Order: sequence, then structure tokens, then C-alpha cells
Amino acid sequence: MSVNFASNEPCASIERLALELSSAAADLARRGWTPASSGNFSARLDPLRIAITVSGCDKGRLTPGDIMLMDDQARALGDSRRPSAEARLHAQIYRLLPQTGAVLHTHSVTQTVASRHFSGAGHVRLSGYELVKAIHGHHSHEQDLLLPVFTNSQDMAEIERHVDAWHAQRQPLHAYLIAGHGIYAWGHDIATAMRHLEAIDFMLACELELRKLPA
Amino acid sequence: MSVNFASNEPCASIERLALELSSAAADLARRGWTPASSGNFSARLDPLRIAITVSGCDKGRLTPGDIMLMDDQARALGDSRRPSAEARLHAQIYRLLPQTGAVLHTHSVTQTVASRHFSGAGHVRLSGYELVKAIHGHHSHEQDLLLPVFTNSQDMAEIERHVDAWHAQRQPLHAYLIAGHGIYAWGHDIATAMRHLEAIDFMLACELELRKLPA
Amino acid sequence: MSVNFASNEPCASIERLALELSSAAADLARRGWTPASSGNFSARLDPLRIAITVSGCDKGRLTPGDIMLMDDQARALGDSRRPSAEARLHAQIYRLLPQTGAVLHTHSVTQTVASRHFSGAGHVRLSGYELVKAIHGHHSHEQDLLLPVFTNSQDMAEIERHVDAWHAQRQPLHAYLIAGHGIYAWGHDIATAMRHLEAIDFMLACELELRKLPA
Amino acid sequence: MSVNFASNEPCASIERLALELSSAAADLARRGWTPASSGNFSARLDPLRIAITVSGCDKGRLTPGDIMLMDDQARALGDSRRPSAEARLHAQIYRLLPQTGAVLHTHSVTQTVASRHFSGAGHVRLSGYELVKAIHGHHSHEQDLLLPVFTNSQDMAEIERHVDAWHAQRQPLHAYLIAGHGIYAWGHDIATAMRHLEAIDFMLACELELRKLPA
Repeated sequence: MSVNFASNEPCASIERLALELSSAAADLARRGWTPASSGNFSARLDPLRIAITVSGCDKGRLTPGDIMLMDDQARALGDSRRPSAEARLHAQIYRLLPQTGAVLHTHSVTQTVASRHFSGAGHVRLSGYELVKAIHGHHSHEQDLLLPVFTNSQDMAEIERHVDAWHAQRQPLHAYLIAGHGIYAWGHDIATAMRHLEAIDFMLACELELRKLPA
Repeated sequence: MSVNFASNEPCASIERLALELSSAAADLARRGWTPASSGNFSARLDPLRIAITVSGCDKGRLTPGDIMLMDDQARALGDSRRPSAEARLHAQIYRLLPQTGAVLHTHSVTQTVASRHFSGAGHVRLSGYELVKAIHGHHSHEQDLLLPVFTNSQDMAEIERHVDAWHAQRQPLHAYLIAGHGIYAWGHDIATAMRHLEAIDFMLACELELRKLPA
Repeated sequence: MSVNFASNEPCASIERLALELSSAAADLARRGWTPASSGNFSARLDPLRIAITVSGCDKGRLTPGDIMLMDDQARALGDSRRPSAEARLHAQIYRLLPQTGAVLHTHSVTQTVASRHFSGAGHVRLSGYELVKAIHGHHSHEQDLLLPVFTNSQDMAEIERHVDAWHAQRQPLHAYLIAGHGIYAWGHDIATAMRHLEAIDFMLACELELRKLPA
Repeated sequence: MSVNFASNEPCASIERLALELSSAAADLARRGWTPASSGNFSARLDPLRIAITVSGCDKGRLTPGDIMLMDDQARALGDSRRPSAEARLHAQIYRLLPQTGAVLHTHSVTQTVASRHFSGAGHVRLSGYELVKAIHGHHSHEQDLLLPVFTNSQDMAEIERHVDAWHAQRQPLHAYLIAGHGIYAWGHDIATAMRHLEAIDFMLACELELRKLPA
């Protein structure tokens, strides 16, 4: 079986990806979605190599030195630094969903509040939004978007098991929330991952606002 | 009977309109009213030609290539591209209300939340706002603004029928919401359409906030 | 009896005041407090002359031509244009409170929502805020700030009568809200009026947020 | 006993600290956390000298003249101006927690609302947030962050006594709120204090939003 690995373009260079990641990160930082230097961002360079931000760097002003290469097991490539613990969750998405070209992890107030409000249910179902059509594979506002909300853990292996279990049940997996933490969203390239992230944050914001209004 | 067709100025050029549309679109994108590249914008060039944004383009940085010409039946003029499905709704407004010089379609969180919250009633009545005077034909805060909220559909012909039915009942038609989707607002030129859109979003935001406050 | 008329500085020029008003207006427009070109701003040039914005101009980009001179009865000085209807309310403040050097009238969502929420009571009392010390004459958070909320009217003379009646009762008059409309705030110069406006909007925002929280 | 006094770097200069304070202040002003020129900011230059903003200056555009030196008893050093009353609270933190290199005092709407909403309890406990890891000494989202909320007073000595009493009970002291007023946050250097402030404001915003949602 041949798998079609996504890559951001046939001959994407690390310089080009780093520039695109920096631009996306600066945009997300401006929105306040990377408070206290949180969040991390990655993009697949080719089937074997993933560029990922080093943890703790200033997301508003990424420099080439803030981005390192790793493989899809989150092992550093040609770099003496270790990827951040959360890099394992990025790597998992590239393995489970080979069409993925970019993974974005952010913490907006909306994402964090939604992740806690819906943690009891274990998921949030977004229904009736035209903007769901911004999500790959959705062609009508009549399609729902089901996002799992996983329990947070400092042990990444535990979160990985939640993701694997959800995926093994053939549940849709377009993005996920971690309770009290934030969101992971992705797409076949950086622009698509940004579009997914923006649309999901928008629908979560609407969902929370609607709940504040008396019937 | 002679009808006075609006046009943005006696000899507006396509270049001039494209520039004005780009500037309006960039302003609306900065406000977050075009999430995930949603929304589209049009302006009447002359009685026979309407300039409209191509769907899916980046609203923050429109280029001349993102704007195409169509007639008032939403048929492409001198362009091999097809206008987006929603172009039909723009064309309908230019036909129904010949004074219209520009139509703006956006999705702010406020617009989307209001469109769902008031969808059961089928309309939202804005009463007691000084800012209603920003809407053409309103000269006192004692005048109400009644906005219909139509059911969403992926079939534009269905939405067109809702608009036609509302208009056929001689109900006021200054802008409309589509449930779970967003707003269409217009005016005799781009600046007026922007003023209408901004004033309506403001009044909807107030209306929602007031409902969150205990009596 | 000699009255100490405020003026923005001993030999303020109309050019200087126009520049300061433009800068304040651009700041307020950026905050979204002048939706749909609403709001107007004035500053006293000397005991006999007040510079005021012409109604309907773009508050984000005032030009010298957007500012005209009037006397404290809101009669145009050396200008064939008529001041806007609301100019009478500005003039009234300069007459009632001769220390006033600048009057700012804006419509933020917070101001408009507060003006409606508290219109039944006819006032809003801001208590327990450190920021009250930003208001002239307040030196402790233990001092309250009482803001009247007047009924809106398209007849400015009616609003003037409400203001006169409040003032005649020797009630404090630091700023006032008009229901469904917005706020008038002032100070002995433009910077002080801006500080008052910003502090009051902040305290109103807190007051509304506190009411949304369950006890 | 030798105490390791924090300083922003081995040979930080007053010019360098002033520049960093200006940049932090401009960032906080842009967020609207210093309404009406409120707030003040300090950084330790060396064990004996603290640079602090003069009260009432424009936080969006600090100049070197807006920063003065004081000792850890809030006495001016080589300056004929007196530090603001609140400088005593800064000095107290440098004395109580010698690792402190910078203290930031701001008033966001979120901070002020939280300070009032939780004033009855006398504290706010932030539990279950991944972002707590941005706070020095917190390595898991399972750790709580307990912030005291002290009663406001125009007598700084009274607030100092509240802080001393809390600290004397060996309660954690990472930042504190003053009811109806704002927050004091700090860290071993300016960047860390900014990170703490940003993370705490974020968690307080989530906490308030969660309370607005029906269960």
C-alpha cells in the first residue's frame, strides 16, 4: 500500500517552512492565543522530517534558531537539543493521519474555557454552523463537527493513549481539546491548519456565548 | 418607468472599486469578521456590471485578481471563473433594491450568535438605539430596525425565496441574517454599506450583552 | 464675580487644538467607541470660542476641515456650516462648568449597554473602585462616582433640561449617560477629558461584568 | 547567612532597565491594563537600588525621565521627587522575596472584576490550568495557584500589613490582588514578571468566563 505523505510543497525548504511557521506564530501571538509563551507549532518538511518550535520561545518573534527538526517519533534530527515533551503529540498526529502537513497547538481563553466546560462530556459537538465548511471534508452546515476533549496529563504517553483510543474507534479526528489546557489542530499544510484553528475557535466562541444567553 | 440605478460614482472604474473593496475587506478582516477566509463583498460598477470577490480569497489582502465581474443574475462577465454560490444572493439584492451600490457579507461572532439566538423568532427587532440613525431612512432613535433571520441552506435558491417572500410582504429590508451563518448588509455605496454593517453589528452586540444581565 | 474660564493652555491655537482633538478622536475610533462615524469632540480655545468636530466626519482621520468654531450658545463663528444638533449639549457643559476645557461624546458597546441597563434607575453609582481617583476631585476609592442617565430625545433642548435640572439640584456632574445612546465626559483639558472617559468606561465595564457573575 | 539578591543581570545598567521597563509598560498599555495612566512598574538594579516609574506618567510612552531610583524602603535615591505612595508596596516585595528582580502593578478589567468577585473569600484558587506551569515553581497542572485578595486602602501601611500577615503564615505568595483595584505580580526579572502577569490574567479570565456558563 502506498501512502501519500503530505508535505507543504514538493520541494519545501526548511527555510521556507520556518518563515511560514514564524508568520503563523506571530499572527497567533497577536491574538493572545500563546499566553506566557505557551503553544507550539510544527510542519512536515518531507516524509521523514518535521520542523517544530522549541518550547518556551517567544511566539511573537520566532527566529530560525527557535525551530528544530525531528522525526515522526519526536526524536531530534541533527540537533543536540531535545524537542519539548509536547512534540510527541505532534509526531503522533503525523503518524496517525499521514495527510497532515502542519500541527498547531494554542491556548486561547475560548479554547481553555471550552476545554474545561465540555470536559465532563468528553467532547463538544458543533452543529449548525456555516463555518464548519472551513473544515476539510465538510461541505454543508448540516454536518456536525465532533471534537474530543481529553483529560490533561503531564505524561504525554497518557494523552497519546487517549488520542489512539479515540482514533481506533474510527471517530472523526479533526482537532482535539485537552481539558484546562488548549487545542491541537492540523491540516495538510500550514494555511489549512490555520484555517481549521481559526474556524474552530470561532465556533467554540459562539457556542460559549450562546450558552450565556437566557433561552 | 425609469429606475435610478445606484452606482458608486458616475464614472467609477473597476480599478477604483477594487481598491475600495480591498480596503473595506482588510478593515473587516482585521476585526475578525471574515474568519477562515469567509465572507464576500461586491459593488455595482454600472447598471449592468457588479464587481465581486472570488470566494475563498484572503480578505485581509485582496488583490485585483481576487475580484471578478458578473451581471445581476450572477453570471460571469468576461471571466472564465464562476462566481461563488453566494454571489446569487448579492445579485438578488441589486435586483430587488436598485439603489444598492454595494453588498457586504460577513460572519462576526456577534452576528453568528445573534443569527442563532433569534432564529426561532425569525427576526430581531432593534429598538431604542440612537445608532439606528446610521441606517438609511432612520431619523430618530424611536424608529425600530427589524432584521429578518432566514434559515440557512446550501441551496442558495432556497435563501433567495426567503428573501423574496419577506420583500413581497413589503417588510423593511435593510440587512438580513442567516441562522448559524452571518449577515448581508448593503447601501448605496461601499462607505454606506460599511456604516450600516458596523452600526448593525454594534446594536446586535448591545442586544446580546443586555440579555446576559440579570434584570 | 470673576470666573476662571478654562482653556487648554494660555495661548492655545486653533491648529494645536485641532491636532490634539484629531489625535484623541483617532484613539477613540481605534477602540471602536465611534461606530458608524458617531460621536463628537470639542475643546475650548478661549472664553469665547469652542472648536468642535463637524458631525458625520470620519473620527479615525479628522482633518482641519472637520473642525469648526462656535460660541458657547453653539452658534457658528466665521463658518457658513451649522454645528451639529448635539453641539448644544457641548456648549451647555462649557456654560454650566466654566472650568471645562474639553468635552468628548462617544458610544462604546459598554457605554450603550450601561446607559440602557441603568436607565430605569436614572443613574449608575460606581463604588469601591481605585480608578475613581482618576476622576477630578476624587482622592480615595471610598468616594462614589454618581453618573446620571438621562432619557434620550431627538430634541436637544429636552436633554439640556434634564442636565440643567440635575445640576440645579447640586448633584455631582462629572459625566452623563443618555439611554440607548452613549456618554458625555469632560475635563479641564483634552488629556483630562480622555482620562475621565477612559476611567468611566473601565468602571462601567467592570460593573456590567460583575453583574453577569452568579453570587 | 548570605542572601542571593536577584538583579536583572550581573551588570544591568539603569539605561538598560529603563528601556526594558518602557517596553513592558508599552505592551501592557496596549492591552488596556493601565487605564487612565494607572499602574506602576519597577525593576531591581542591584541589591541597593530599584528603578521605578513615577506615578501618573503615560504608560504607553515612558521616557527615561519617567523612571526614578529608590532604595528598598521606597526612599528616593539622588532624586528630588518622591516615589508614589504605591512604591512602598513594590519595596516590600523586594524585601520579603529577595529573589525578586521586577514588580508589575496593573489594572485590567479582568483583574479588577476578579479582585472584587473574590474579595469576600479573601483569595482565589486557580486549579486545573496547564498555564499554571508558567508560574515559577509550578511543574504540573495539578498544582494550584492560590492568590490572596487584600482589602483596598489609601493607607499603604495597611496593605503592607495584610501582605506581611499572609507571608508570615507561610502562605504561597506569587502575586496578589487588591479588591476593586488590581494586581501586583513579580518575578526574578522583567520577562518573568511579565510571564507571570500574563498567565495569571489569562487564568483569571478563564475562571470568570467559566462562572458565567450555566452548569
